[in-house]
Amino acid sequence: MSHLRLKERRREDYGYILEYRTRWSDNDMYDHMNNSIYNFLYDSVVNTYLIEKCGLHPPTSPQYGLVVHSHADFFGSIAFPAVADLALRVNKLGKSSVTYEIGLFERGIQEVKSVGEIIHVFVSRDTGRPAANGMSQSLKEGLEKILVKQKQFKL
Amino acid sequence: MSHLRLKERRREDYGYILEYRTRWSDNDMYDHMNNSIYNFLYDSVVNTYLIEKCGLHPPTSPQYGLVVHSHADFFGSIAFPAVADLALRVNKLGKSSVTYEIGLFERGIQEVKSVGEIIHVFVSRDTGRPAANGMSQSLKEGLEKILVKQKQFKL
Amino acid sequence: MSHLRLKERRREDYGYILEYRTRWSDNDMYDHMNNSIYNFLYDSVVNTYLIEKCGLHPPTSPQYGLVVHSHADFFGSIAFPAVADLALRVNKLGKSSVTYEIGLFERGIQEVKSVGEIIHVFVSRDTGRPAANGMSQSLKEGLEKILVKQKQFKL
Amino acid sequence: MSHLRLKERRREDYGYILEYRTRWSDNDMYDHMNNSIYNFLYDSVVNTYLIEKCGLHPPTSPQYGLVVHSHADFFGSIAFPAVADLALRVNKLGKSSVTYEIGLFERGIQEVKSVGEIIHVFVSRDTGRPAANGMSQSLKEGLEKILVKQKQFKL
Repeated sequence: MSHLRLKERRREDYGYILEYRTRWSDNDMYDHMNNSIYNFLYDSVVNTYLIEKCGLHPPTSPQYGLVVHSHADFFGSIAFPAVADLALRVNKLGKSSVTYEIGLFERGIQEVKSVGEIIHVFVSRDTGRPAANGMSQSLKEGLEKILVKQKQFKL
Repeated sequence: MSHLRLKERRREDYGYILEYRTRWSDNDMYDHMNNSIYNFLYDSVVNTYLIEKCGLHPPTSPQYGLVVHSHADFFGSIAFPAVADLALRVNKLGKSSVTYEIGLFERGIQEVKSVGEIIHVFVSRDTGRPAANGMSQSLKEGLEKILVKQKQFKL
Repeated sequence: MSHLRLKERRREDYGYILEYRTRWSDNDMYDHMNNSIYNFLYDSVVNTYLIEKCGLHPPTSPQYGLVVHSHADFFGSIAFPAVADLALRVNKLGKSSVTYEIGLFERGIQEVKSVGEIIHVFVSRDTGRPAANGMSQSLKEGLEKILVKQKQFKL
Repeated sequence: MSHLRLKERRREDYGYILEYRTRWSDNDMYDHMNNSIYNFLYDSVVNTYLIEKCGLHPPTSPQYGLVVHSHADFFGSIAFPAVADLALRVNKLGKSSVTYEIGLFERGIQEVKSVGEIIHVFVSRDTGRPAANGMSQSLKEGLEKILVKQKQFKL
């Protein structure tokens, strides 16, 4: 999706939101949060959702998510000690793979600071490969709850 | 102070508390928060207090705090996706230096997980050395508000 | 570029290489380096190149690079205590913007573990916007040295 | 040991040294490496030694090290993109516990930047408590190789 359209994202476009307080070490020499830290926060909201809503238990679950692709667009900066809101939705749900979209907002500000996507492939812990039947039922059901049907665009 | 006495710390022993959601990347291979991460959180509550309550503005303030010593004792573990409460007090306030104590708690649990101290020496940005008159008035006044007079122990 | 073609990248496709030892805290609960850490290493090789070869001095330079987009594809995992080789090239050089490509390799292994791109827009420190004349001459000259002319593909 | 005496530490006081390239994200707003990052590097040299020289295999070993205390003194700063040398020794070796000392140096500079200690208690993976016979033989033998007998000081 285009940089310009993503910039219009608002909190209400997402089904799950968590707040994360920024940390002192997040800031770089230019006094704004290091771009790499956004990925830490994206990962964190995704994994919290998997644990709290999809029955994932990282130390023992028979399947886990392997990141195969990620990308992010940046529209504005945020700096410690601001509080960030991390907003999550699922854009695409396949047999073994899922595409999450994450928006990062700053508490008290409507405009989005950054939007990214992460693609997980769920693999079996013992083989490191996708299971024949795809992701488990509890993962599938949990992820469907925040799946957003993409609008079809006629050209 | 002894490991055993520090273990008795509770939230009410501190004058300032902030909550920090743990991040996915905080956990180590043993599925608990990496010990080094505690220091990130200690730093974060200290610097938030300096910014919000003591008038510090890191990019421009004429003085800044240089860490000369830190230590921490660990009593229990915490793991993503738990929420941590970081509790701050000042144990000692000198002319240019301050000793902070930080307690890390887990939301919903009374016992403390770790207690640490950090010693800051405030130096002038242009010389890198303490100012002749010591730390600024606004720093001093802000820090005094959470200064805890240590009890005298008779032997 | 397609996931499959990027997987064929080798060290010799890049003009600048630095080694980075992985850190204990880089590993996640599944005993491989956290995906977000790749971005820390991408950033590090880019900024080292800018400082050492392009005359950038982050605390004072009149221009600095703002990340507007990043993405990464992951082909294999790496785990502490392995040593990583970070390989850098420039794929596109505009008036104020530059597209870096970074490959991450593991010492002793030929196949690439991940390939990513970061897009920097160089802005003036005082305005936060691109300069009328674009990036400085020293940045431009330094970046041209590792610019790779993309092959034209006829369909 | 006193702050002043530790400041005299040199590379030759340690039995094991590894170099770590600093990362862009290590620097704070004051353009020097964040103090919390020192702990990441301390942890990294300790765990590399345990893995490479003491037979530890974090994902499966029957025992692992739990940090119960750490402290650090800081004598000078280091900044990205400098390369750090992390130097390790063992100051005390008990039945189940070990006290490591770590010195952090900057490549090309003789004086030490920081010296810290970390105390590990080795516990059984299944009980979370020290084993009746203490740490395993391979841990003990590996750690003895860099044990430094402390000089006795007469008063």
